Parts: sequence; structure tokens; C-alpha cells
Amino acid sequence: MWGVEGIGEIRPGDQLGEIIVSACAPGTDDELHDGDVLVVTQKVVSKAENRMVQIDPTNPLSHKKLVEQEAVRIVRRRGDLIITETTHGFVCANSGVDLSNVEAGWAALLPIDSDRSARRIGDIVKARLGIDVGVIVSDTFGRPWRKGLTDVAIGVAGIAGVLDLRGTEDALGRTMQVTEVAVADEIAAGAEMVMGKSSGIPVAIVRGIDPRWLRSSSMSELVRNPQEDLFR
Amino acid sequence: MWGVEGIGEIRPGDQLGEIIVSACAPGTDDELHDGDVLVVTQKVVSKAENRMVQIDPTNPLSHKKLVEQEAVRIVRRRGDLIITETTHGFVCANSGVDLSNVEAGWAALLPIDSDRSARRIGDIVKARLGIDVGVIVSDTFGRPWRKGLTDVAIGVAGIAGVLDLRGTEDALGRTMQVTEVAVADEIAAGAEMVMGKSSGIPVAIVRGIDPRWLRSSSMSELVRNPQEDLFR
Repeated sequence: MWGVEGIGEIRPGDQLGEIIVSACAPGTDDELHDGDVLVVTQKVVSKAENRMVQIDPTNPLSHKKLVEQEAVRIVRRRGDLIITETTHGFVCANSGVDLSNVEAGWAALLPIDSDRSARRIGDIVKARLGIDVGVIVSDTFGRPWRKGLTDVAIGVAGIAGVLDLRGTEDALGRTMQVTEVAVADEIAAGAEMVMGKSSGIPVAIVRGIDPRWLRSSSMSELVRNPQEDLFR
Repeated sequence: MWGVEGIGEIRPGDQLGEIIVSACAPGTDDELHDGDVLVVTQKVVSKAENRMVQIDPTNPLSHKKLVEQEAVRIVRRRGDLIITETTHGFVCANSGVDLSNVEAGWAALLPIDSDRSARRIGDIVKARLGIDVGVIVSDTFGRPWRKGLTDVAIGVAGIAGVLDLRGTEDALGRTMQVTEVAVADEIAAGAEMVMGKSSGIPVAIVRGIDPRWLRSSSMSELVRNPQEDLFR
């Protein structure tokens, strides 16, 4: 896995898929291959899809109002920290409304449908280069009980969200009972390391993914149904 | 990142560090380099450290008793699923007591101190090969709100647990306020993909890690203090 150089700043209305195709064109160091997975950070997807909203940087309520508008439920609140459930079913800080890596006075909302965002990028790669890639839109989420943030998938296309290994055998030939591996989250987490938070690299290529993982998918594989959730 | 072939079955009392050194010796495809990070699954660490306990496979209470013995707190319980906090401060299913990839009639407990387990492996690599590597002991945990499991770090040595980027600048030159990246968990998650649940590859090598991340560390970087935990 490595970061794609030269994507540059993304602006509202930019055709992100076309920009990625140019950066990963045949003959470049970042030439895409069949079966590669592209990981694209939420920030550039939100920018391209014009999910940018003006806020008053001198008024913290301005940000807070957006957070509440994007939430369907407040999960926890302590001081300035608000953990919410978004319309997508994601549980994250501040409904994913983000002020970092955006210009002062602006906030980036999550894409309305990140699966669709991922699918669009994959479709453009297919149309322009004739090859099939998986696409993951990634974002940085916290989690209970552990410190630090990791990147997770918030949109998937052409790459499994969760791999269901139930019923297959372990290395000792015993049937595995409950092993569902969140491969899209593992790919997003790994790819974060080659993009970084401050280096301005919004796209990574992951090569060598098991071809069986490349299939149609959606975030419903990864977002837990509230009824099944032990922590609701 | 790639999996190390030829480690074979690990048995109680095996010198895991020596076995890894042999598999990654100079001249092999898996030759270790200065600055590599070794990811080692908990299962083989627990086996080598003789954390194996006999259970009665016909009696589910036999497993349950172990789970409760290894827990300091029951976090949630639903049917057969028990989420506990372990003596280490990890919150996970069944106190990490695991029946997969172990022989029938046996359960694997978590290592007593996985930081020490990681440090020992790093020390043996240093002593035998004269090179510095980071070592992560990884295990597979579930998480709230999202389906599927991902690998996380349960022990670290010579590699940062969490990277503290607070106070540094984002790509647009703004100071980032709350960005602590759990790099050890991201490495563990990424490495799971090259080890897999059923392929019997318990060790992966990750190359190309930012050398600044290679420093002394401990799981206290990753385990949230219960007093700070919003979800306690």
C-alpha cells in the first residue's frame, strides 16, 4: 500500500474520479492494476461533492448546530465532545462534521451516500482505464475503551465490507463459529498509515488483495443494526 | 506487509523469538531489516508461554468459568456472548479466552503481559541478528456499532502505540487539535489481511514504517483509563 502523490487540493464540483484516473494513469508510478483497491479519504469526497458548509469560526455554537443537524441520536456527551449516530448509522464524534484540513470558516459534512461516492470513482476508473478496482471511502473515527483514532470504511464499492468465514475451517481443521472479518476497515486502517493526517495525501492504492474479496458490497455489511447492538 | 511462511505449529515452551529469527534469517525471502515491525498473533504467543488450559468440550460452563476468571468486570452479556474487561484493561468478547486454532479440549488465555512478550521477541531479534525491529502482539476483537472483527494490538515493543499529532499542523497549516492516531492498531489491522484466520500464518513483517514511530512504548498508550471512558 502506498499514497498517490500529486492529487492536489480538491474543490467543490471537481470530478474526483477523473482526477484520480489522471494521477494513476498508465505509465505513472501509481499506475492502477486490475484488482487494486483505492482508498480515498472522506475529506476530498466531501469537498468534491460540495458538502462544505460555512460556519462562524468565532462561535462554537455554529459548529455544534451542524453536529446536531447531522445526528439522528446523541449517544454520549461530555463537555465539548459529542458522540452521535448519523443518518448513515455511523457512531462517531461530532456526526463526522470536521474542521481539520478544511479552510477556516468552513466545515466538511460526511458524503450523503459514501457507497455511491465509492461506486462513482470505481465506475470512472472502469470507463477510462478498462480495469476493475475496489474503492473504499475512509474516515477517522474514535472507539470506546481504546485511545487513539483509526481509519474505518464509510463507503465501499467492489470490495467486501465484511468477510464471512463462519463455517470454514481453521488451520487445525476445526469449523470456525464466529469469524466475520471487517476487511474494509482493516484496509482503511492500514492505508491511513501511508496517507497520514498532515501530509495532504488523500488517496492510497492497496495491491495484492485476495481477489475473492473483490465483489459488490455496501456499508450495510459494516454498520450494525441498532436492534442487534449490545451498546445501544 | 506480508506473512512469514514456515513458522509451523507452536507448542508450550517453544522459544518463539528464536523460531521467528530462524524463519526470518539473513538470505531468506523473509530476511528482517532494521526498522521492520513484526506482528505476531496472540495465539502463538499464548501457546509458547503455556497459557493453554484444558476445558471440557462437552460442557459449555467449562469455558464460561475461564472467561469469568479472566475478567475484572462484565461489560455486557447477551445469551452466550459475554463482553468483559480483562485484567489488562482490554474490553473484548469472552475475556479473550479463545477456542479457535487450538486443539479440541483446550482454550488459549491471553498472555499475562503482552508488552513483555513483544519485548522478548524484539530482544532476541536484536541479540541474534543485531537489528532493531518493532514488535506488536495482535488479537482479534469486536467493537460496538460496527459488524465484523478487526485485529488490534494487545502488546507493543519498540513501536508507538498512539502517535500524538496534537499541536502539529494539517496540510492547510492549521493546528490539529485532537488527532491521536492509534498506529499500532492500524498496523495490526493491516497485517491481519496477510495472515488470515485460517491460513496458519502467525507472523507478518511490515516494512516502510516511518522511523519516528519506532520508539519504546507500552499498551498504556492504547488502553483507555476507565475514568476517562465515556462508555463505562
